[in-house]
Amino acid sequence: MAHETMINGSVTSPIGFSAGAAACGLKKAGGLDLALLYSERDCTAAAVFTRNQVVAAPVILDRETLAANHSRIRGIVANAGIANACTGEQGLLAARQTQQAAAEHLSCRPEQLFVLSTGVIGVQLPMAKIREGLRLASSDLAGSNGPKAAQAIMTTDTRPKQIAVQVPLAGGQVIIGGIAKGSGMIHPDMATMLAIITTDALIPAGLLQELLVEAIEPTFNCISVDGDTSTNDTVLLLANGASRLSLVDKESLDRFSEVLRQVCSELARMIVLDGEGASKFVEILVSGARTRGEAKAVAATIATSPLVKTALAGNDPNWGRIMMAAGRAGVPFDQNGVGLWAGYPGSSPLSLVIGGTPTDYAEAEAVAIFSRPEINLHLDLGQGSAEATMWTTDLTHEYVSINGDYRT
Amino acid sequence: MAHETMINGSVTSPIGFSAGAAACGLKKAGGLDLALLYSERDCTAAAVFTRNQVVAAPVILDRETLAANHSRIRGIVANAGIANACTGEQGLLAARQTQQAAAEHLSCRPEQLFVLSTGVIGVQLPMAKIREGLRLASSDLAGSNGPKAAQAIMTTDTRPKQIAVQVPLAGGQVIIGGIAKGSGMIHPDMATMLAIITTDALIPAGLLQELLVEAIEPTFNCISVDGDTSTNDTVLLLANGASRLSLVDKESLDRFSEVLRQVCSELARMIVLDGEGASKFVEILVSGARTRGEAKAVAATIATSPLVKTALAGNDPNWGRIMMAAGRAGVPFDQNGVGLWAGYPGSSPLSLVIGGTPTDYAEAEAVAIFSRPEINLHLDLGQGSAEATMWTTDLTHEYVSINGDYRT
Repeated sequence: MAHETMINGSVTSPIGFSAGAAACGLKKAGGLDLALLYSERDCTAAAVFTRNQVVAAPVILDRETLAANHSRIRGIVANAGIANACTGEQGLLAARQTQQAAAEHLSCRPEQLFVLSTGVIGVQLPMAKIREGLRLASSDLAGSNGPKAAQAIMTTDTRPKQIAVQVPLAGGQVIIGGIAKGSGMIHPDMATMLAIITTDALIPAGLLQELLVEAIEPTFNCISVDGDTSTNDTVLLLANGASRLSLVDKESLDRFSEVLRQVCSELARMIVLDGEGASKFVEILVSGARTRGEAKAVAATIATSPLVKTALAGNDPNWGRIMMAAGRAGVPFDQNGVGLWAGYPGSSPLSLVIGGTPTDYAEAEAVAIFSRPEINLHLDLGQGSAEATMWTTDLTHEYVSINGDYRT
Repeated sequence: MAHETMINGSVTSPIGFSAGAAACGLKKAGGLDLALLYSERDCTAAAVFTRNQVVAAPVILDRETLAANHSRIRGIVANAGIANACTGEQGLLAARQTQQAAAEHLSCRPEQLFVLSTGVIGVQLPMAKIREGLRLASSDLAGSNGPKAAQAIMTTDTRPKQIAVQVPLAGGQVIIGGIAKGSGMIHPDMATMLAIITTDALIPAGLLQELLVEAIEPTFNCISVDGDTSTNDTVLLLANGASRLSLVDKESLDRFSEVLRQVCSELARMIVLDGEGASKFVEILVSGARTRGEAKAVAATIATSPLVKTALAGNDPNWGRIMMAAGRAGVPFDQNGVGLWAGYPGSSPLSLVIGGTPTDYAEAEAVAIFSRPEINLHLDLGQGSAEATMWTTDLTHEYVSINGDYRT
């Protein structure tokens, strides 16, 4: 069987999906702000939602929709500019009205559509604008409009995020496509992260949900750790079966699962790379932990430490801050067993700490690594054999500027 | 009995304490960097140390000292500029040598002295400089030198932090004095926080430890939540009994306990006010929680949210970020029961959110509050009757600058 192939595509690359977009005045800066995704056939659907206690109206509605109907989904309506969060009963009604109005344009039932919103919290959706946007977007539907949908869901993103990959299976090939948007420092205070993934494979809803959960853990959840998600975060996966190919054997299943993970991984990586004010992409590998959970807790604490992130912004190999952050993750370990290395893709890593104390590394060499746009940090706890990887960015002046005047 | 009186004093205001300081070349910028505190009488001692897994050599040594000798302490040696953390066996030896050398100058036994360090991690103490500093500081000992000691323990602090309060007891009065240093964003990534508190009251070591733990919980621990402390954080309390007054009745005990808490509270407040790059002092009260622990978890998540802190820096009443941060604290609550108010000391608070949705507050009024140098936020979860208060600062460009080039 041939290998998977990344193609120049988007969420509409799988057979039978089309998209449309419109500018209806939800974004202060103007531009496309409403997207429709439509499948000509019923889709099975899988979804993973935010674990935040405060959830936006569309999340409440989509949970309800998924519970009632996981096998006859026809599309998604998404808006950017207003999150429809902290909007109470009126907000929930607006989400339902959006679903209803979109259904009329797409000639399906409301419960066949998901609704996504991202943007400012605490503002009600202007329904007249939404209705006009739906009218325009539905008359714009085309199989080539995935990129327009990717554009329409952006908030503080500086570029659209999309991908499509061909997956050879026994008897032919299927495609997995996706778009995403992210903003904020991603973790721990990410503004909304949304991702829509489509495929023309034929997959029952139960299996689809399992595949999505598995794919998200080491990808989206490693830029946005469990529980640390915003009011709106949602990843949706629709499978419309238009290829008429299903995952008939273990090889097909493994192949599809691997590519789905790759799609999630690339989209997650694009979100981090486009992190607000980010000047660096930083991979943090924590190994030698007793459990993956402990490894992830340590990696997440390092990844979110303002002192670590500002040092990264300053090209400062201040590894003491990495040690300190690791030490306050709530994970017990012996400081005298800790090793730390820094490098960049393609380099051989520089050993900074062995047995909890600094090596005699050359400062200039460390500064050179910490000055790179892409940095790999590796902390070994010396306690066991579990590991986890997190992706993060540095914390820059630009981040403070963007977030000090985002709303007003 | 008269009320307690704040006096213009420091850690040497209680009878029988003296201090000395020296510049021995540990701080790159120069200036006082080594302090001695000395009591002419044996002291009972209490201490609270960092809960970080990575602890500096002086913390290891002081835990050992306190366990072996909690009633015959004679003083403290503290240095700034080098933290003596991640320094392994050599660092522990250096801490012991510091203790030993100081004991020779003060004519006591090494185990009668605590050792404190703060500064850069991963650098060995230069013992020749330390020895010279000890020689100079010990010949500088005077009852008026508390302020010099406060100066000598500073790192990125912009001003010394000290306080002294007279406590009237049955039969006379005692004094509680203290100095502190803090830096970093305090929480969650505080660089070292050190505090030394002294009193001339006569208090057995067991009671002293109880009193300190009680005083720290709502003060130092509400700027630096349990477990979220650096490699060196230490609060020491010495009682030398020179007043010959003890806490003979419940009224005396309550009075002393209250003033000790006040001293800790003022020092903690000074640390926050001097937070790196801080332009605002922000008090976050979370009420209506089921337990104090849950209230504190929510308050701490808000207090450390980069998106909340950058909005504060930008004078932006972006309360959606406060709701979002509360929602990801890992504490279950019903978003439709949440209320949020903002104000400043002396104002009547402005209601921003009731029942999880925004009120019709005037934006200009909210902006006026968020533009103040001191802001009080109050979030009610509507779940119970427990509450907790955290103090924090905003996240500014200046913070990024300070921490982007602190070390190199």
